[in-house]
Amino acid sequence: MQLEDLILVSVDDHIIEPPDLFEGHIPSRFRDRAPRYARDEQLGAYTWAWEGGKSLTAFINAVVTLPKQEWGFDPASLEEIRPGCYDVHERVRDMDRNGILASMCFPSFPAFSGRFFAQVDDKELARAVLQAYNDWQIDEWAASHPGRFIPLALPAMWDAEVSAAEVRRVARKGCTAITFSENPCNLGFPTIHKGAWDPFFRACCDEGVALAIHIAADATGLPGGPDTPLDTRLTIPTWNALPTLAEWLWSPVLRSFPELRIALSEGGTSWIPGFLDRMERHYDNQKWTGADLGGLTPTELFRRHFLTCFISDPSGLLLRDRIGIDNIAFETDYPHSDCIFPNAAEDLWQRFAECGATAEEMRKIGYENACRFLRFDPFRHVPKSEASVGALRARAVDVDTRTRSKAEYRAAFEEARANA
Amino acid sequence: MQLEDLILVSVDDHIIEPPDLFEGHIPSRFRDRAPRYARDEQLGAYTWAWEGGKSLTAFINAVVTLPKQEWGFDPASLEEIRPGCYDVHERVRDMDRNGILASMCFPSFPAFSGRFFAQVDDKELARAVLQAYNDWQIDEWAASHPGRFIPLALPAMWDAEVSAAEVRRVARKGCTAITFSENPCNLGFPTIHKGAWDPFFRACCDEGVALAIHIAADATGLPGGPDTPLDTRLTIPTWNALPTLAEWLWSPVLRSFPELRIALSEGGTSWIPGFLDRMERHYDNQKWTGADLGGLTPTELFRRHFLTCFISDPSGLLLRDRIGIDNIAFETDYPHSDCIFPNAAEDLWQRFAECGATAEEMRKIGYENACRFLRFDPFRHVPKSEASVGALRARAVDVDTRTRSKAEYRAAFEEARANA
Repeated sequence: MQLEDLILVSVDDHIIEPPDLFEGHIPSRFRDRAPRYARDEQLGAYTWAWEGGKSLTAFINAVVTLPKQEWGFDPASLEEIRPGCYDVHERVRDMDRNGILASMCFPSFPAFSGRFFAQVDDKELARAVLQAYNDWQIDEWAASHPGRFIPLALPAMWDAEVSAAEVRRVARKGCTAITFSENPCNLGFPTIHKGAWDPFFRACCDEGVALAIHIAADATGLPGGPDTPLDTRLTIPTWNALPTLAEWLWSPVLRSFPELRIALSEGGTSWIPGFLDRMERHYDNQKWTGADLGGLTPTELFRRHFLTCFISDPSGLLLRDRIGIDNIAFETDYPHSDCIFPNAAEDLWQRFAECGATAEEMRKIGYENACRFLRFDPFRHVPKSEASVGALRARAVDVDTRTRSKAEYRAAFEEARANA
Repeated sequence: MQLEDLILVSVDDHIIEPPDLFEGHIPSRFRDRAPRYARDEQLGAYTWAWEGGKSLTAFINAVVTLPKQEWGFDPASLEEIRPGCYDVHERVRDMDRNGILASMCFPSFPAFSGRFFAQVDDKELARAVLQAYNDWQIDEWAASHPGRFIPLALPAMWDAEVSAAEVRRVARKGCTAITFSENPCNLGFPTIHKGAWDPFFRACCDEGVALAIHIAADATGLPGGPDTPLDTRLTIPTWNALPTLAEWLWSPVLRSFPELRIALSEGGTSWIPGFLDRMERHYDNQKWTGADLGGLTPTELFRRHFLTCFISDPSGLLLRDRIGIDNIAFETDYPHSDCIFPNAAEDLWQRFAECGATAEEMRKIGYENACRFLRFDPFRHVPKSEASVGALRARAVDVDTRTRSKAEYRAAFEEARANA
């Protein structure tokens, strides 16, 4: 196999939402109360604002092709970022150039779990906004380019029954994944352990919808105590998925829902082999705790339920057999600061070479695991012969991947608006 | 090399302190105010109590050779646990039987960082108790069997200058290691980043004393939120060392103290390769943060300063080259519930076989790294020919390693007291 022959599905990218998101999706009686993208003169920044509060997106989460000296936490505006962040047609061109056949895109302003929508007292409004958001993701963003996006819905974090109904509703539209919190008690909601979320998990199993738990889904800022260095605060969220996995693994909930599937989005893979070693030894050694894994070992239980997801994770690939070759998927994290663009395929190819991956392993990690786990078949819409890195790139030769400043993006944005 | 030829130094074991600890070490004016081991009728348990509060040791931290159905968090008493927990002569017999040449022992009732001694307002009392404790560790516990223990002092967590003076004092007595907090701000003290601890770190560098930061040093209980399964709470502290390492790695403090050495006690090794991958990629990719590692890469900085320590960590050994073969040491964690006794050597031998370790690698991980890092030379006292697993075990054939119940230990304890 050559690099050009790889087929790549990315299970974790991000949308910076366009201002017209709710148009045509929100019922008219709620239209004036839905979050609105506008310049907040008090903050001197664009925000999504509604009666549930304000949400900012920082440049650090939209820096693809910006020069590094312009990276930072100052609030981003659409005028100053790469159009592929918010325009689905530009996004697909960037995916072509990056060699990515298909992408699952997480939200920005609602937070990865959609908790921003839980912040209003009027839960009818919250539900209408949530449904409008999900409809936009599924019917507009993803449907605009069949086979290129795995639609990803948001749950109603404030209500497990409403979330269950939403799972059944979006599943009827072909959506096979929904986000979730790293631990709902972080958001003031019930934990997964005592049955409060069972209606939601039941709906996910019934409908074949996977959970996607993205690192820092519950965070309201970077972690750390007083004086913690910025680089520490930026790097340690990678391991947020570790306590999340430990909560799930030892919880009774997986015994109740053997069909439930959970992607640990952006959680990486390199810590999994040692995690499983630890859990295996604990399970053998600490029999006094009465842990019940339903007759499975911790490793077997992990492999039955979880998908791990990495951007660039050489040590994890070296120990892929200890993770489970069917439990590893690839992601690019576009347009966040850790994303690899436009050379994601080159980076992955180099990692594959370092670990001596076989062609079968490259297929599994590149796209097969993602497609099976997320019940997504891109080849219904895109012939396999047109799905490879080489084929996608052949039609994206004119995509400009040069570094451009915020001022350059602003000038281009204003020119396009004038021409429209 | 054969299993019997291994030489093993364990860099992390634990003392359950004997009641006469302070006798002969505490100045007479403070004798009545030092912590006292006695039965607390209100709690129905033995505690170490003083005007700074009470400290309990749970059975789970003294379960070696107890049957698993008797493991748990109920308070332990010396009458019901294996004498090797608290009696140094019995400890050495158990080390012989386990094939362990030498051991560095962490405290129990003062907590791993000694924070229990910070809990009184009278800091003269605190200092006298701290010094008495350290003198007992060095002059009594460790000195009773030369070459068999690496003395480990406790710092004065309430005062960096007092800690610095204590480093210089214990160093004169041959002590080359001192514990420290995972992050002093967890205990209400200043962080490492802004210079508050520089006098202490300076003293450590001047005197060649290493820091030993044990996982859960700052914890006042098991981690977890509401409903978190017990098995999750028991297992995730293994990764406490990860944020600790990230705090240190990106802190200016290591640039100021290039000689400082830090053992991440019981922190394991398996997460290190992926941690270094992540930090390398971050350092290359996020140049905007202005991180200054003094011209070193994150991996180089890690290898200059840190010792990683594992009980049984197969995935870490498989990637030992990515950690650094000179940065890995072995531990048995006796008498805690995760310890391996009496077959620690067999477990390690099996791990060495799985990863194809060379004889040189077995020497480094088995004892050389620990001895170099902790400036400890056991062979001044124990000829190498008498230091191997085989040689130690040859004189420990009568050590009883059978499982015995608390009632059996109590009966033996009372019989010994009657005979004394």
